[in-house]
Formats: sequence, structure tokens, C-alpha cells
Amino acid sequence: MIVILKENHTPQQFDSLCGWLKAQKLDIQVNRGYRQTVLGLLGDTTQLDADLLRALEIVEDVKRVSEPYKKANRKFHPANTVITVGDAEIGGGEPVLIAGPCSVESREQILAIARLVKDAGAKLLRGGAFKPRTSPYDFQGMRAEGIELLLEAKKDTGLPIVTEIMDISQLPLFADVDVIQVGARNMQNFELLKELGRGDKPILLKRGLSSTVKELLMSAEYIMAGGNSKVILCERGIRTFETATRNTLDISVVPVLHELSHLPVIVDPSHATGVYRYVKPLAVAAIAAGADGLIIEVHNDPEHALCDGPQSLKPGAFAEVAELVRKITPFAVR
Amino acid sequence: MIVILKENHTPQQFDSLCGWLKAQKLDIQVNRGYRQTVLGLLGDTTQLDADLLRALEIVEDVKRVSEPYKKANRKFHPANTVITVGDAEIGGGEPVLIAGPCSVESREQILAIARLVKDAGAKLLRGGAFKPRTSPYDFQGMRAEGIELLLEAKKDTGLPIVTEIMDISQLPLFADVDVIQVGARNMQNFELLKELGRGDKPILLKRGLSSTVKELLMSAEYIMAGGNSKVILCERGIRTFETATRNTLDISVVPVLHELSHLPVIVDPSHATGVYRYVKPLAVAAIAAGADGLIIEVHNDPEHALCDGPQSLKPGAFAEVAELVRKITPFAVR
Amino acid sequence: MIVILKENHTPQQFDSLCGWLKAQKLDIQVNRGYRQTVLGLLGDTTQLDADLLRALEIVEDVKRVSEPYKKANRKFHPANTVITVGDAEIGGGEPVLIAGPCSVESREQILAIARLVKDAGAKLLRGGAFKPRTSPYDFQGMRAEGIELLLEAKKDTGLPIVTEIMDISQLPLFADVDVIQVGARNMQNFELLKELGRGDKPILLKRGLSSTVKELLMSAEYIMAGGNSKVILCERGIRTFETATRNTLDISVVPVLHELSHLPVIVDPSHATGVYRYVKPLAVAAIAAGADGLIIEVHNDPEHALCDGPQSLKPGAFAEVAELVRKITPFAVR
Amino acid sequence: MIVILKENHTPQQFDSLCGWLKAQKLDIQVNRGYRQTVLGLLGDTTQLDADLLRALEIVEDVKRVSEPYKKANRKFHPANTVITVGDAEIGGGEPVLIAGPCSVESREQILAIARLVKDAGAKLLRGGAFKPRTSPYDFQGMRAEGIELLLEAKKDTGLPIVTEIMDISQLPLFADVDVIQVGARNMQNFELLKELGRGDKPILLKRGLSSTVKELLMSAEYIMAGGNSKVILCERGIRTFETATRNTLDISVVPVLHELSHLPVIVDPSHATGVYRYVKPLAVAAIAAGADGLIIEVHNDPEHALCDGPQSLKPGAFAEVAELVRKITPFAVR
Repeated sequence: MIVILKENHTPQQFDSLCGWLKAQKLDIQVNRGYRQTVLGLLGDTTQLDADLLRALEIVEDVKRVSEPYKKANRKFHPANTVITVGDAEIGGGEPVLIAGPCSVESREQILAIARLVKDAGAKLLRGGAFKPRTSPYDFQGMRAEGIELLLEAKKDTGLPIVTEIMDISQLPLFADVDVIQVGARNMQNFELLKELGRGDKPILLKRGLSSTVKELLMSAEYIMAGGNSKVILCERGIRTFETATRNTLDISVVPVLHELSHLPVIVDPSHATGVYRYVKPLAVAAIAAGADGLIIEVHNDPEHALCDGPQSLKPGAFAEVAELVRKITPFAVR
Repeated sequence: MIVILKENHTPQQFDSLCGWLKAQKLDIQVNRGYRQTVLGLLGDTTQLDADLLRALEIVEDVKRVSEPYKKANRKFHPANTVITVGDAEIGGGEPVLIAGPCSVESREQILAIARLVKDAGAKLLRGGAFKPRTSPYDFQGMRAEGIELLLEAKKDTGLPIVTEIMDISQLPLFADVDVIQVGARNMQNFELLKELGRGDKPILLKRGLSSTVKELLMSAEYIMAGGNSKVILCERGIRTFETATRNTLDISVVPVLHELSHLPVIVDPSHATGVYRYVKPLAVAAIAAGADGLIIEVHNDPEHALCDGPQSLKPGAFAEVAELVRKITPFAVR
Repeated sequence: MIVILKENHTPQQFDSLCGWLKAQKLDIQVNRGYRQTVLGLLGDTTQLDADLLRALEIVEDVKRVSEPYKKANRKFHPANTVITVGDAEIGGGEPVLIAGPCSVESREQILAIARLVKDAGAKLLRGGAFKPRTSPYDFQGMRAEGIELLLEAKKDTGLPIVTEIMDISQLPLFADVDVIQVGARNMQNFELLKELGRGDKPILLKRGLSSTVKELLMSAEYIMAGGNSKVILCERGIRTFETATRNTLDISVVPVLHELSHLPVIVDPSHATGVYRYVKPLAVAAIAAGADGLIIEVHNDPEHALCDGPQSLKPGAFAEVAELVRKITPFAVR
Repeated sequence: MIVILKENHTPQQFDSLCGWLKAQKLDIQVNRGYRQTVLGLLGDTTQLDADLLRALEIVEDVKRVSEPYKKANRKFHPANTVITVGDAEIGGGEPVLIAGPCSVESREQILAIARLVKDAGAKLLRGGAFKPRTSPYDFQGMRAEGIELLLEAKKDTGLPIVTEIMDISQLPLFADVDVIQVGARNMQNFELLKELGRGDKPILLKRGLSSTVKELLMSAEYIMAGGNSKVILCERGIRTFETATRNTLDISVVPVLHELSHLPVIVDPSHATGVYRYVKPLAVAAIAAGADGLIIEVHNDPEHALCDGPQSLKPGAFAEVAELVRKITPFAVR
């Protein structure tokens, strides 16, 4: 960490700062220029609060040289993390397909889709029971009943299930869920992250709409700091000025996250674009860029879906995507 | 609501759509052009899910003419909502100052600041007990103990208190809190909003970092739909490409929100900029633009604050801001 | 085009508006709801200024149903445009590789790189002679001399050349240049676009850092309206809040632009990320998503490049990208 | 400037880098940590290309401690720059109002508006002769004839005129123009900036839609590096995800620019919001925050304006704004 001091500081301020830093068990290297003094801090600065330093009268700016995340950091854990769920090894080299409807809507619907996506090659079934909707007047999901239906589909097909949690109080309902999804709007719901960190279920952590790569990794760190190291990172589009797609799929984060972290990275082309016609090109693009998997919305009857229909593929289209992913995998960049 | 149909639809699709819309008790006006057919829907479309319509094969696009929020909408409630808390009438014409430290850090600290900001003209005391921090290794707030200390400061000074809730499970601790703050990261924590909608405490709802004005109003609607109409909207900066300030204070939303909604609108210049030197100019700018109040961070010893020091004013500087706000109020645009 | 009228308009205002619209040779379909009146305009509204309509007291809002671009629009020109330059057919099904240094720096450099990228499979040579630099103190390019050197490299290798124009006054120097590049910062330099529209050289039009898809197509329309239909669209990253990469490569625009327009679409992964390590994954991702080509920075000695070194590939790395592009092409989504 | 080296560099690489840096007349302070080596560079690094350094294999990152702009920098020029045009002293303490129509449309129009805005207190007349329009089919301005009409209005009223240049080739027409405006889309048209730097006319430089504060100052530096120090900075809204206003007025840049630079800063609330109803609150907010002036669109007949009508004030409304600005000036923060 580098601390840039203001030009006109007093020796007292300087001594006081250095004394405090040494008390934090840091070594200090002083760099006096003709206009500015710069301190280089050596030692473990992960737990040092840069904001606190910036608050000091004597400090002009603070720049981190190393990242404030540790458990999620590839520097301290060079090998890829592989998370095994059912037959799938997420992060294990073979891209994993997660598929299913936006919302669980009925027993018939979820069973039918589960069988179809399994046949097409999906290794996990997704489906929303608790739905975060912008409007209180929109369909809020089948909730507890939706989870029951997902478990029935799991029993029927053998596919492990992924579904979203929206509040700590719902956790007891997730006892038999295989992967718990934290949605984009909850990526910085820190109380929820801490609670999930106390468990040992794999967590699918979606990037927030305006969250940086660093913030995504810090949220993973919240879960990992509690002891749960099974975190799957998911890019699902960020909010930008462009409105041609619902959000902007930031595909660059696939190689960026693989460089910074050992955690698996999957991509959600359905929510990123909001348009089913763009799902296929972006799905194969993500795999080509090295993604460890995809999470894709599939519906047997998108014309009557209760939510997010425009972005859902019909099963036949999903099977085509799955086939293309298999063909492109040998040429993916990793 | 306007529904634009695709060029090549069949009469069957058309009849099926119109039948369904009529079942929703909507009147339909058909507008046939030489390339496109457009339906105008008349009636209450608030609870109609535009996404569902867009999913239909026959539909090219759907455009809302009226807004999907109702209780927060000025069209249906022309008079300003005034929320009375202690001596303060938020939305009542006189700008209300809310001030206090970022975090409650000790009994001495919060009592000292409470007295100082009261003397300077603040009508409410703010202070963080539960702190949302990006890093799990940063100070997380004094939590329950912090709320105890705030209540002590309230008793001592008579100032009502505003403090942030981060999870539904913390609600019992907020029984004696006067205004519950929902932070930017929780603006779309819908389960929390619903729970707060069941109570009757005033809610200070901060705009999310990448939330649109419409989404902010929809989140207010979540609270109001549950029966709690005491919502105070708060602009605290949005995330943009600019890094000269921590976030970009979107001051335009003051007149925009006043036009669209009857709810009071306050501004937080401290979090928006992250730099104490910019708090004063932006505070008076917000009042000039018609804001109903300000929430400002004040610290008696910013050099030793445990978080967010760089954006906190010393009490003397806060008193100057308060004085300037009083002078500028007669010329504010409302 | 749909015109939504304000609730309280007078019959005089209404008649005056309808009279004016009819004078524009438009048919009007009136849609009276119980709260709002909506006009549907039928006919050619491409040249109608929506801003002008919005200015009228009687009008609440105007929504376009059809796009304001015509010559660039796939609706009016369903077949792909193929632009032939040398051996390359841009938009012809086979992805075209354009490669070369950020800046032309010397005769030796440009000749060496030209040969290397040709051997690796590039069909066009790129190189900057006029360089748009943020700082007036940074290297501004070799200018006229740089173009001379590019032409020499063209003569030596047979590769057609692509280079950027920054001002109309430079146009005479571009007489023998094969493809003229308009940089991101000039995407809305309308005088330049008009001038280029009067010529017949292929134009490589880069998307502005904060330009929407629609604005990019409108800028193509500026060139095409003048008679020059040889426009190659180029995605090179947009400006967002994320700083992990220099800009955010908006890969979704590949299928979006192919849907909206018949013009070829290429991708620049070098400028988008600013980091050479991310060029390969994003290059193959772009091809997988259906891009008609790539423009990639290659340097024989990036350690001593005068600008943009961090994003340049060494020739060996470029050859690997070219090889991978060939392998992935059969599986690209188009 | 701080240079962070990669962990595994060779002594040869290190010596080669230090040798090169010393050749640039810089002093080097070496800071060896247990994981990282950091170099502090002392001396004039303004003209050092950070990109070039980042390109080196040995370098992990480069961080500037001081800003790369010099002539625009308040550090090297502590006193405010005051630019005198006619009666107005821009930057002189009294806010200056610049007003007029979006476009010059006719002799009658410009003369009428010029007289009205003069009466209301404007010190300069604005009006567009060359108009940058997104669509080639929209009105492009009266061009040379428009400038003639502006000069006539100047003669009639004595008001100096401000009008936008779009290309170097138009410069001869600007011989009698008092202030030349560079629009947002041309903020990084570096050839134009250089040409304007060779003259001595005041330049009103508008911030680009996605330009940072630093980039705005670097563009000012382009003009100033050529010898012309009369630059007026103008904030006119940036592009963000929010669509409630056309752009997002970044009011924070008023104090930020005043801190970083000695140049005057004015605000354009008309283009920022695109809605006339929001012009008044944002105009007074900008003055309260310390702006040195405002540029406001005024039309005598906005219902028939050929462009940008929705954001133009009628003369009466402008007079109200001018009156309020006078009242609020004594309380502005500077």
C-alpha cells in the first residue's frame, strides 16, 4: 500500500502517522521527493482500512498495490477451485450447463422442462421460487411451494437444483437445495452473505448491476471468510447507457476473473440480453472466452410464461446451444 | 399501454391476444398502419406485466404510457406528503437537516456529536450501527450496542434518530428508532421493503447506485403497497464512469422526483462525493434545487473516525452549512 | 410514430397539430382513451424531427415505432453487404483479420510487422499515422510520413492498408489508403462523416465510447446518405464504471447489429481491453458470436512501442489467435 | 509517478529500466518490499507517457501522483483566470448569463431573442449556426448565413456572440465571433483544439458525454499548449444509465474543477436535462455550487423551434431565472 502525504505536513503529524502504522505491524519505507513524500507500507495490509488512512489530515491519497481479497485471490491459491455438484464438476475443464425456467409455475411445467433440459445435456436444473421483481404488483414466485416442486423435479430427473434465496429467513427452506443462488440485487446484502458463509452449500454469486470485479470478489470473500469456499462467480450483464440489450454482458470479466481468482466463472446470457435471439451467440462467445459454464433460461411454452419470457429459449433451441457448446469447447481459451 | 404487433401475424394470434386482453378488463383500440398494427390498451394497466406481453410471438414491443407506480405517483395524490418526526416536518417547506457520524463508535462520541449538531440546527441525528462495508475485514459497526448508544443520545438531546437496517432479523432492535434507513445496496431487497411496509415507521429510502428514478419509485411503492406511506426518498449519488468524486450526485432528480411523486426528497452530499470539501457547495445546490432536506456526515474528530472519515465535516463546518441553508431557503425553487 | 397528447389540450391545439401533420403527408389515426389521446402516424416519418414534436405544448411524449436510419437498415436491404478490399471480402462469411502496430514508428518497424502479420494470416495491415492522444504532450504520430511508410509496406507485402483520419484537411493524404478509419472520438464528427460520404473508399467506423447502437447506425447513415455505402462497423469497447479493463467490450452488439443492419461488423479486442493477455479470449469470443472480422494490434517489440504497448500482441501470439480463429469459424453463430 | 514492478524481474531488466528513466532526467527512489519493488520517480513526469512504461515486461502498474496537465492546473497558476468578453468578466466573481436560441432560424427570430435576453440580463448571445445532429436528415443549421445573422444581432444589441464550430475549415467564418464554442462531440477533436490554440479567441469548451474531468482538462491543455489561455470550461451533462433526464448534470464538477484548475466553469442546464421545466432549479443549483456562469437556451416561440424546443425557456421564464440568479449569488459557495 502506498500513502501519499500532503505537501505541508508537520513533523508531529508525520511521527504520529508512522507510529500508528508501526503499531499495525507494518514496515514503512519513506520516499521523499522535492514536492511530495510517499510512504510504502510493507506487510499484510489486507485488513487495513484505506478510508481511515485517507481521513487523516496529513494524507493526500492512498493507493493499494495488492488486492484486499485473500481467500478468493489466485495469488494465494494458484490452482482452480472445482466445485462438484451431482455429476457436474464446475471449474473442472468441461463447461457445465445449468438450465430451466425463469420461474417455477406448476408441477407439470417444471417436470417437463427438467426432463427436456436433462436430455439436451444440462447438468443442473435452475428455476425461480422466490422472484425479485421491480414492481410489487408483478408475480413474486411460488415461494415455498416452488421449492417443493423443484425438489420433485430433482427426484424425478436426478438433476441437482439451483434456486435463488432473497432473505436469510428463507434459509430453512433451502436445506435440500444443491446450489443457492444470490441474485444481482443481493450481491452486497452482506448479512445474507455472512450467513451463507457459515454453511457449506455451493453459492452461485451473481454480479450486481453496477458492481466492479473487485466488489464481486469482495462479496465472494464475505462468504469465504465465514468458512464456505464453494463460491461460483456469475457474470449476468452490467448496467450501462446502452439500451439495445437489457444489460451489457461484460464478457471480458471471464479472463479477468480467471486471472485474479481461482473460483469458477459462469455466464448468464439470458438475463444479460433479455432477448432470446441473442442467447446463442453470447453463450458460445462466453465458452470461447473460457467460461466454466452457462446458466440459461429455458421454457417449454415461453408464450405463456409468467415472467421473463422474452429471454427464454424453447427446448429445441437450448439443445442447439448445448450441441454447439460441446463443439466449441476444444477451442476455448483457458 | 401501447402494444406494437409484428408485421406478419395471423388472424388467430390476433384474436387470441385480444381475447386475453379483454379478459384483463381492458379496452382495445386497434390502429392498423400499412406496415404495422398498434393496439392502444385503455383501463388499469398498472398490474399488467409488460414482460409477459413482450414474450408473445405476435408482439414486437410494448410501451407504457402511464407509470406502473400508483401510491407514490403524484397524479393520484397531488398534495405533498409531509412526514412529521419530532420537531421536523419533512416535506413541509422548511428544509430539514439530518446530521451525525458515519458510525457510532462510542458513548462519548455520539453524545458529543449529537449535542453539536443539535446546536447547529440539525433536527434529526443520524449514525450507523449496522454498517455495510465492501470488505468483510473492515469495521462492521457496533450493531445492537450502537443502537443503544443512539437511543441514549436521543434521550439526552431530544433529537429523533435515523439509522440503517441491513436485514429483517434486525427489526426488533429498531423498535425505538424514529426513522429506519434502507441503504443504497438494499434498495431492491424486496423482502425487507415488504416487511417495512407492514410497519408504520418513516422509512428513509436511499437510491441504489445504479437504480433509475422509476426503480426508486417502484421500491417506494413496495413499502407503500403494504400500507406504510411514510417514505422519504434520498438521492446519494449514482455510479458512472467519473472517478473525480466517489459517485455522481444526480441533482436533477430533485425536480424530477417532485414532479413524479408527492414524497419528500432529501439529498446526501457526503456519500455522493466522498470528499468533505465538496459537501458545502453540493448541500446548498441541493437546497436551491428544491430538496426537502439534507443528510450530512459530521464527526467531531474525523482524523480518527473508523470509517468514511474523508467525507465528514467537522462541527464548525456543519454549522456553516446549516447557516447557509437557512439563508438560501427563501430562494429555493419549488 | 406514436404521439401521446397531454390530458388537457384544447380543440384548437388538436386541430392545429393534425393540420401540420397532414401537411407532412402523414396519415393520422386517433386513439382516444379515458385519460389520454394517442395519435398513430402512418407514412414516412424518417425525416420527421421527434424533438420538434415534443416541443409542442399539446404533446406529452413521442415514441418512434420504426428506426430513423434507412440506408443502413436491414429492413430495407435484407442481404449482407460485402466489402471487397484486396483479397478480403469483409462481411462475406470468412472472418477477416486486420493487424498491425498501434503507431507507425519507423520504416523497419512497419515493414517487419507487415510481413509477420501477413504470414500469420492477416488480410489487411493497420497502423496509426495520425494518433488521437489524450495529452498534447504525448506522441502524436508520424503523420504524413507515417502514411508514406504504410504505403511502402503495402507495396512490399501486397496488404491493403487501414489507417485513421482525424480531420477533413488530411484527406488528400489518404488517396492511396485502402480503408479509412474513423476513430471512436470522431464517430460524431458529422462534417468529417459527410465528407467521407462523398467519396467511395471503404470506411471503418468505430463506435464512440458512449455511443448507442442507434447512434452508431445514424453515423453510418451520415456516410451512406452522401452516396458511399461501404461502411464497416467496429465495436471497440464502451465506457462504463468498470476499470478492470480499459473499456467494456460490448460483445452483444455483434448479433444486435447483424439484426438491425446489413453492414459488416468487426471487433477490436485490443483497444477494448487495453491488456494484451485478454486479446485472445475476446478475439475468439467475438468470432464465435458472429463477428465478420477482427482488428488487432501487433508489435514486434511491444516493450519499446511508443504508444499503447500494453495491449499489443507479439507476432507469435497473433499467429496463435489467427490459427484459433480459423478453427472456431465453422462453429460461429451467424 | 510511481512504478510498481513485477515480482519476478531480472537484474538486467531492472538496470535497463533505471537507465532509461535517468536518461529522462528523473530521480529514482527504490522501495523494495518482500513481495514487490516500487519505484518513486521525482522530477517533471508531465511529459512521460505512462502507457509506454506500462508496456514494459518488468512493469506491473504505473500510478501518477501528479496530474499530467500543467497550464490548466491551479497548482501552477493559483489565481482565477478571468476572461473578459464585452461587458462580461467570466470568472470574475459575478455569474455571467449566456442565452439565446438553440439554432439561428431567421433574422426576425435572432434579433427578437437577442433583445429579449439582453433586457433580462444576459451578457452574451448564444445561437447555433452549425448544428451537430444525430441524424443526417435533421436540420443542420443555417451555417454561414446563421453567423451573418448572429453578427447582425450583435450589432443591433451590442451583445458579444457565442457559436459552435464543427470543423477547422469553418474557422474563417468565425473571424468576428467573440467566443467559439467546441461542442461535447468535438471535445476530443484534437486537430481542431490545436488549431484553436493557435488563435487568441476565447473558447467555450464543452465536456464530452463520457469524458472525465481529467480528460476535459487535458483538452483545455491542448488549446493552452498552443498559446491560447482563454478557455471556459462547460459542464453540460454526462451519459449515464438514467433516462429521466436526457443526460445527467454532474454538478459536483463545479467545485472539483475550481479546485483543480484556475479556468472559469459554466453550466448548461438546458442540454443537460433536455426539459425546460428542470432548467430553473438546476440553474440556481449551479450558481449556488459556485458556477461562474450559465448558458441557457431561450426561444421566443418554442412551439415552432426547429430543434431542441423541449429544453428552451420562453423569455419570461428566462427573466425569472436571471432574477433568481442575482438573488442567490451572494450566498453562492466559492
